[in-house]
Amino acid sequence: MSREFAFLFGVHNHQPVGNFGWVFENAVRDCYLPFLRILAAHPTVKFSAHYSGPLLEFLRQRNSEIWDRLGELTARGQVELLGGGFYEPILAIIPEADRRGQIEMMSDYLERHFGRRPRGLWLTERVWEPSLAQTLAAAGIEYTLLDEDHFRYAGVRNLNEVYVTEDEGFPVRLMAIDQKLRYLIPFGTLAEIETYLTDIRARGGLAVLGDDGEKFGLWPGTNDWVYEKGWLERFLIFLEDREIRTLTYAEAIDERLPAARVYPPPASYGEMMEWVLEPAEADRYKRLRTTVPDEDRRFLRGGYFRDFFLKYPESRHLRDRMLKISKSVREGNDPEAVRELYQGQGNDPFWHGVFGGLYLPHLREAAYEHLLKAEARVPFTAGWRIDDLDLDGRPEFLSRDDRFGLIVKPDGGGSLVEIDYYPLARNLSDVLARRPETYHRTEAAPESGADESGKSIHERTKPLPPDAARLLRPDHEPRRSSLDRFFDLEASFERFHKGDDLDRGDFTRGAFSAEVTADRLILTRLGRIILGTETVPLAVRKEIIPGSSGFRIQTTIRNKSTRTARFIQAVEWNLYQTLEEIEVGLRSARLCHGRLMFSSEPAGELWMAPLRTLSQSEKDFDIIHQGVCLTWVRRIELAPGESIDSAVELKESPRPQKLESG
Amino acid sequence: MSREFAFLFGVHNHQPVGNFGWVFENAVRDCYLPFLRILAAHPTVKFSAHYSGPLLEFLRQRNSEIWDRLGELTARGQVELLGGGFYEPILAIIPEADRRGQIEMMSDYLERHFGRRPRGLWLTERVWEPSLAQTLAAAGIEYTLLDEDHFRYAGVRNLNEVYVTEDEGFPVRLMAIDQKLRYLIPFGTLAEIETYLTDIRARGGLAVLGDDGEKFGLWPGTNDWVYEKGWLERFLIFLEDREIRTLTYAEAIDERLPAARVYPPPASYGEMMEWVLEPAEADRYKRLRTTVPDEDRRFLRGGYFRDFFLKYPESRHLRDRMLKISKSVREGNDPEAVRELYQGQGNDPFWHGVFGGLYLPHLREAAYEHLLKAEARVPFTAGWRIDDLDLDGRPEFLSRDDRFGLIVKPDGGGSLVEIDYYPLARNLSDVLARRPETYHRTEAAPESGADESGKSIHERTKPLPPDAARLLRPDHEPRRSSLDRFFDLEASFERFHKGDDLDRGDFTRGAFSAEVTADRLILTRLGRIILGTETVPLAVRKEIIPGSSGFRIQTTIRNKSTRTARFIQAVEWNLYQTLEEIEVGLRSARLCHGRLMFSSEPAGELWMAPLRTLSQSEKDFDIIHQGVCLTWVRRIELAPGESIDSAVELKESPRPQKLESG
Repeated sequence: MSREFAFLFGVHNHQPVGNFGWVFENAVRDCYLPFLRILAAHPTVKFSAHYSGPLLEFLRQRNSEIWDRLGELTARGQVELLGGGFYEPILAIIPEADRRGQIEMMSDYLERHFGRRPRGLWLTERVWEPSLAQTLAAAGIEYTLLDEDHFRYAGVRNLNEVYVTEDEGFPVRLMAIDQKLRYLIPFGTLAEIETYLTDIRARGGLAVLGDDGEKFGLWPGTNDWVYEKGWLERFLIFLEDREIRTLTYAEAIDERLPAARVYPPPASYGEMMEWVLEPAEADRYKRLRTTVPDEDRRFLRGGYFRDFFLKYPESRHLRDRMLKISKSVREGNDPEAVRELYQGQGNDPFWHGVFGGLYLPHLREAAYEHLLKAEARVPFTAGWRIDDLDLDGRPEFLSRDDRFGLIVKPDGGGSLVEIDYYPLARNLSDVLARRPETYHRTEAAPESGADESGKSIHERTKPLPPDAARLLRPDHEPRRSSLDRFFDLEASFERFHKGDDLDRGDFTRGAFSAEVTADRLILTRLGRIILGTETVPLAVRKEIIPGSSGFRIQTTIRNKSTRTARFIQAVEWNLYQTLEEIEVGLRSARLCHGRLMFSSEPAGELWMAPLRTLSQSEKDFDIIHQGVCLTWVRRIELAPGESIDSAVELKESPRPQKLESG
Repeated sequence: MSREFAFLFGVHNHQPVGNFGWVFENAVRDCYLPFLRILAAHPTVKFSAHYSGPLLEFLRQRNSEIWDRLGELTARGQVELLGGGFYEPILAIIPEADRRGQIEMMSDYLERHFGRRPRGLWLTERVWEPSLAQTLAAAGIEYTLLDEDHFRYAGVRNLNEVYVTEDEGFPVRLMAIDQKLRYLIPFGTLAEIETYLTDIRARGGLAVLGDDGEKFGLWPGTNDWVYEKGWLERFLIFLEDREIRTLTYAEAIDERLPAARVYPPPASYGEMMEWVLEPAEADRYKRLRTTVPDEDRRFLRGGYFRDFFLKYPESRHLRDRMLKISKSVREGNDPEAVRELYQGQGNDPFWHGVFGGLYLPHLREAAYEHLLKAEARVPFTAGWRIDDLDLDGRPEFLSRDDRFGLIVKPDGGGSLVEIDYYPLARNLSDVLARRPETYHRTEAAPESGADESGKSIHERTKPLPPDAARLLRPDHEPRRSSLDRFFDLEASFERFHKGDDLDRGDFTRGAFSAEVTADRLILTRLGRIILGTETVPLAVRKEIIPGSSGFRIQTTIRNKSTRTARFIQAVEWNLYQTLEEIEVGLRSARLCHGRLMFSSEPAGELWMAPLRTLSQSEKDFDIIHQGVCLTWVRRIELAPGESIDSAVELKESPRPQKLESG
């Protein structure tokens, strides 16, 4: 077995399901294509490359030059194509059956189109769990790459070797992606790179690079640097001139046996394990990291990837739904449903770090779209059923017909946690609450008392946009629908629109009793509102009644006190609608380009406020429209014992009021 | 749902497969029985109890009063019996099919004998991995208990609640074992306990105890304290007098819904995660812990349980074998083989901490005994086959017939890594190498430079035995057999016996080429020995020849130098034999009470040294006989190009020379 030095050059290229077409186009033009053209002109430079499924499908459909070049470079053995989960899921958070299915889908695809099954796998976001060794081995994968952090946690010091890990005795080989090489390529000088490679060579090691392909042309400034200024061309000439041996990952695995067995614990790259922490915890962790000597770094851990489900209830909900839909899809035998399911498992909308991810509504929309298309293909029984989707021990009530799906959480204010409209494969309730993020504190630091010294220059030099303060007011709950709020008579649209907390009742966080009678779900709660200094007991009864083309929620409010009560009844809905597709009148709204009508009876007043978040992306802060908050308000005077009825209805328009744009 | 305070009293009782009968007897007499008798006399005090399978089987066979009392207390609902893996395996390190099998075996057993299937599970050594949620849920388990550490790592602050976790959407509920209660019971005063319980009650929490039942009578001094001095009786009266509500775990789970979802990462209790570290790493970790503020403790992690396989190659080997045998057993349909397999999966011999575990040869012996009995029931093809048992990418050669099994590692000095004798279900090669342990440094600390301040009183006050130095000389390799060593002519039995490194060759760590020809495995290596200042190239050829009643290893040594070489050929075997069962003559040995003959041809001289280790146990340091090192020596003079043959044979005696004791 050879112990000869080699440089392993690998790139990972990905565009998520649901990303805009122009993003794909730009990425091909500025990055993926010029990269391949230059590599093709240096046939002795071996490399490895991963293209995620959505990107491969795009390239193939567009008959891209990239597609042909990949075929050519694969045939001559210059490039090794890596496998992965086809639609780039975080393997650790999808069911085992889907892990295997997605990996095999990619392996089949690469074999069909490029003649070779992949031997290695690009691990999405390097989210490793030990049981993946078995998953990968069973799916025919021989090796994958992890970050230095994984190996450090496992107590490994020599990172320039091949290792092997196992689960239940199923082995998979591991290599560590060299962090310093990730900084040097393509940003370092050739002299720096030479010095570093010489050092690795002297130790008899392998120099392993695996990094986002987008660094070669798509990241800000890199197109100019890598191609116009010729960095990549110079780098490849340097490799040739110095006779630096390059190998594909698989060739290296064949050449070099494992130096030892290792057991990396669950982890991802260090930044990810910070992003998953709540801001206060992240601050503490960053501070701690600065105090711990380097040699003790292996004992320091941030959060655990699954904690994203706790930090972001919207991510948890998406996953809970994905798991249920996966289960029902697996019970059937419909390849198209499976394909839709897999498209709904892409990693991006499940998390958030320096990239948008969860904060990008078009990515969440795409995930739900594919999941709902999968679900629509599964046989179902119309009517209500009970399930504990979120596993909290309190039942949810689910209603389903061929047009609408509803999920009601009695203990969550008797609200709707999901409203699906199957004809558009649209989750109308897919909005995002505002919550504190570490980077929101760039300006607020003096108040928070956080130590600024641990923050990177990058963070410090990115000022919040001027309008930020309003967008930083956190919502304390996920933004559900059919929330029963009660305002005092001084409440105004202006204060509502500003985001003031006007609610004087205890209904939105309280628990409703629930029972199904015939076609409807009946929710009741005896709660209270505080008007001035007075506490007024109120009984709220809601009937959720699915109909043939929509559903209706009838509400009865009864004054259980001995005095007359005067207040504003406010029924809040939070819906995922862009400002282009919604039309809001004073007393009704048309949704989805007129496909749906949203109304109340008796006709109430409708207040609307846009839901916007402030999040960071790789370039800047983004203010993102997440949907609209629609609230039906009316003034009520109720004598003791008296009750009043109202209803809110969401249903299909008999004929669309406006043509759809798409 | 009730939020009422309750005290949850639970104990875990375990004796491993293979433990001595008198240990079981004493434990019943001093601990398990008096505990139950006292609890039975206080019928209003609810509690939960786990008895591992080996213990239950013992109690049932002995017709113990405990058995009847458990029936009685179960019937009246005073005690809830917990499930678990029947033979108390670490669930995370056995195959998923066996996890389910062992859990269901216990559930079936409890249902058959006590009329109820367990709803909760005692998690062996609380070695948690996130995928266990799915395992437990699929096996019908609703909840388990973890330590405070697990919850701390997950960022949970309120430890007096019920939580829920999930894997692939399969939920399992979790409660945290209260660490302070573990110290207070049975060692605190009733006043201290009352103060602490009052505090938990004030916070609306649950007080959850789950601890080793052996603390109630078996740990040093506790029999007197708990029973003679009446601590337990007083404690139960205290609970009754103060009307402290007690619940079984299951009752608490029914009463109190999950406060939140949590995702504990893989972990065990804190001490375990230190024990798994190599001594130098453990020192650094302990030092680090003292510098980190309490609120940041969640970010500090020791090792990972699977690292025991790296720290102790003998543990890894046992597990690798267990996994292979499990796989072949699962391919068949033999319930008895499954039962033997499960008995070979008990946790104790896989690890070492404050208890003996891996260091106890009778526990390792029992594990191999059951695994070999399982393996013996699986159909096999006689002869050699190739496998990569240890997954290092280098093949091992395995020979098998109905009497002997051999595993040869060509790259490990062409040595035998396992020698099985199926008629006795005995792994003759099951010895343990000596290696540094943290506690060995109690005296050596000034040299090691370790900071003593982090050490507990327990460690500081335990001096090493006077003879320790000799036992602390580490072996650098696992102690395999048929190791080809070469001594110079000054080597003596005395120096050998003292443990001096006499080997002048490079054969024991080097790689041999291997090939199977007809019935035999042929191993060859061109190596060298250093005699004085001279390097002498030698060729060693070994043929391993299985026969009808044993096997023979024929060795040819050829002098490849241009000078005559004079040296001692020393062939080292390390065998698991007690001093009672082995009889060593000057030129041969009888093993296993005369069942096996160990000889050489031409008859060589046989040097023997006992293999002893120094390890800690809960009470003291133990010097443990792990087996014997048997080395065939003879003086050789080889002219240039000349070769010399020899052979070593291990075979059954035509008739046993001595009767077996058992």
